[in-house]
Amino acid sequence: MAALTDHLVIERLATNPVVRPQDVQPSRPGMEVLCAFNAGAIRVDDEFVLLLRVAERPLSGSMPDDAMILDLHAPEPKTRPATGAESAAGFVAFSVLDLTASTPGIATRYLPRDLPGLDLTDPRSIRYAGQTYLTSISHLRLARSRDGVTFRVDPQPALAPATAEEEFGCEDPRLTRIGDTFYLAYTAVSRYGIGTALARSPDLRRFERLGVAFYPENRDVALFPEQIGGRYVALHRPQPRHIGPPTMWLGYSTDLHLWGDHRFLMAPRPGMWDSKRIGGGAVPFRVPEGWLELYHGVDEADRYCLGAVLLDGDQPGKVLARSPRPFLEPEAPFEREGLLGNVVFTCGAVPLDDGRMRVYYGAADSVTGAADLDVKGLLATLT
Amino acid sequence: MAALTDHLVIERLATNPVVRPQDVQPSRPGMEVLCAFNAGAIRVDDEFVLLLRVAERPLSGSMPDDAMILDLHAPEPKTRPATGAESAAGFVAFSVLDLTASTPGIATRYLPRDLPGLDLTDPRSIRYAGQTYLTSISHLRLARSRDGVTFRVDPQPALAPATAEEEFGCEDPRLTRIGDTFYLAYTAVSRYGIGTALARSPDLRRFERLGVAFYPENRDVALFPEQIGGRYVALHRPQPRHIGPPTMWLGYSTDLHLWGDHRFLMAPRPGMWDSKRIGGGAVPFRVPEGWLELYHGVDEADRYCLGAVLLDGDQPGKVLARSPRPFLEPEAPFEREGLLGNVVFTCGAVPLDDGRMRVYYGAADSVTGAADLDVKGLLATLT
Repeated sequence: MAALTDHLVIERLATNPVVRPQDVQPSRPGMEVLCAFNAGAIRVDDEFVLLLRVAERPLSGSMPDDAMILDLHAPEPKTRPATGAESAAGFVAFSVLDLTASTPGIATRYLPRDLPGLDLTDPRSIRYAGQTYLTSISHLRLARSRDGVTFRVDPQPALAPATAEEEFGCEDPRLTRIGDTFYLAYTAVSRYGIGTALARSPDLRRFERLGVAFYPENRDVALFPEQIGGRYVALHRPQPRHIGPPTMWLGYSTDLHLWGDHRFLMAPRPGMWDSKRIGGGAVPFRVPEGWLELYHGVDEADRYCLGAVLLDGDQPGKVLARSPRPFLEPEAPFEREGLLGNVVFTCGAVPLDDGRMRVYYGAADSVTGAADLDVKGLLATLT
Repeated sequence: MAALTDHLVIERLATNPVVRPQDVQPSRPGMEVLCAFNAGAIRVDDEFVLLLRVAERPLSGSMPDDAMILDLHAPEPKTRPATGAESAAGFVAFSVLDLTASTPGIATRYLPRDLPGLDLTDPRSIRYAGQTYLTSISHLRLARSRDGVTFRVDPQPALAPATAEEEFGCEDPRLTRIGDTFYLAYTAVSRYGIGTALARSPDLRRFERLGVAFYPENRDVALFPEQIGGRYVALHRPQPRHIGPPTMWLGYSTDLHLWGDHRFLMAPRPGMWDSKRIGGGAVPFRVPEGWLELYHGVDEADRYCLGAVLLDGDQPGKVLARSPRPFLEPEAPFEREGLLGNVVFTCGAVPLDDGRMRVYYGAADSVTGAADLDVKGLLATLT
């Protein structure tokens, strides 16, 4: 009865999804919120705090008079003003951070739909001749709750794209409290790749950037909440181009700013639920047996599920046990259908008063769900 | 007469190549030296020191009785003993570091040539079903000279594969003297990818490993020889999988061990000699105008050439000028033909007494050449 045991280990909230795009105000006029998902999560005193990834795109409809058309025929992409004869229907519109404009800020670009070779098959990206743009631009937004179920979403971003390395967005935040400071690891995306930047905050209101700690290509970074063996530790997930699959590594630091001594931790497992890709999920937390990490795995059908790995308490580079099957799979309608269907993906889990963990997770790259996890039950399933 | 000027800027040594595979003793019985190239270079007192990348492969011919055949049909690669009926001709032989053996060390593997889908088109690699092995395994070897022309090559490696992240080899070293210590950045290759590790030495004899500072995929790392603005600086070249070309970045450190605050520096230039790939070459050196970096660029025909970039002296993240054309192109026969033809690639240059720099460079991924560079003349060509 293994399958039954697995189902008892985790229980979705009846009110799922707990945050939807329509719960979030756009950050500026002319934009609509497409997704509110992949939230960092932390519990502070009696408050549940989410740091949502909010993905926005330009409102469809009319093209403004000052629209800039992206010309990709030139060796370096250039923009030109739209002519009066062009209408919105003929273009894909997307937004980027433009630091070269006289007033630097978020700017919308228009790309002709009839451009030969334009690849729109992935709903998340626009590809043309080796160049990639994103269909939406993400920022990070705080949401707060007393019960962990009903959230008030801030009207404005907590952290929005502001640097060259964040030109295409800030994504997938993980929040770790270390001492009295909150550390944030978030994906920074630009034409130069997908890397991970750090920031810190004394109060979860003001965030100070610490720069790109993990250059491209690296995402799914989470900082451990305490020093281990005299050093801070980060889970990260480099994705090499030429040799090797995406694997999970540990990096070490003495100041939470500079990182090194990187070591391979674990790889995808051929033939299993995490055969194609893996990456860190929630911030690792202490259990009597060591460190428990809830991570995502992707199979050959591109189905994103959640499983766990138990790491040694003193030497987190030692893998002690791992989920033979996922503890959460995309089964509910809101997990199966959305911008990218068949995805459950966590960036944070928080302890409940009854000893369970509430796992917040992005569903179908669109909304935020929550499910309560029996940690002891989960540990019993690891092998 | 720009072309003529370029040719006067650099002068190849008449005795090229200065180191060839036949000048290097194999590191162990049963191996042959295939390449001696991509050498780090430094001048210490009156001595020219090269740290060569030496690539070795198993001697062809008979298969030993205890040969291990690699079975790639299993989900995880396994080895099995050869049967008496199998002969060397039917197999591709290559060596790896085997840390799981009862006596960990370099071990040879045999792969059936008739394996369906086996890809041997790149002379440097063996590819099968998403897995990659290298046809040769590299270690680092010291060579010394009084005149910078005639080198005595050490009989044994200075640094050979010893960790999981070096399983497929140690490659492309760059040597930087910082204070009284020599720092070494070298490529560490394994099934987990191509990263860069650091080591240090008080005397260029004993090397102490500092671990993987630049996780995969990252190579072409060179440390600047002094602090700039109170921090150490490294050139590095991440190669992302999903978004962006291989670009050169700067990273910063306070202890030469842990790195962060990574920032994009420069990209390939469409339509130019460095359109497809770029990467750091020699260790950057001071010129009156700033920092001069000799780097490699690759064009759409996969031709590797050398050019230069001038960086601001106080803010090395500022690119001041760059070579419109290469200062060294693969033209000599030993540069055009070898394991990988049409390649000139530098890991080090040293100052000569007449003010020129002697650039040591790997040619055709096989041998080591040298050419003397008129730095002032080169600077005049940058735009």
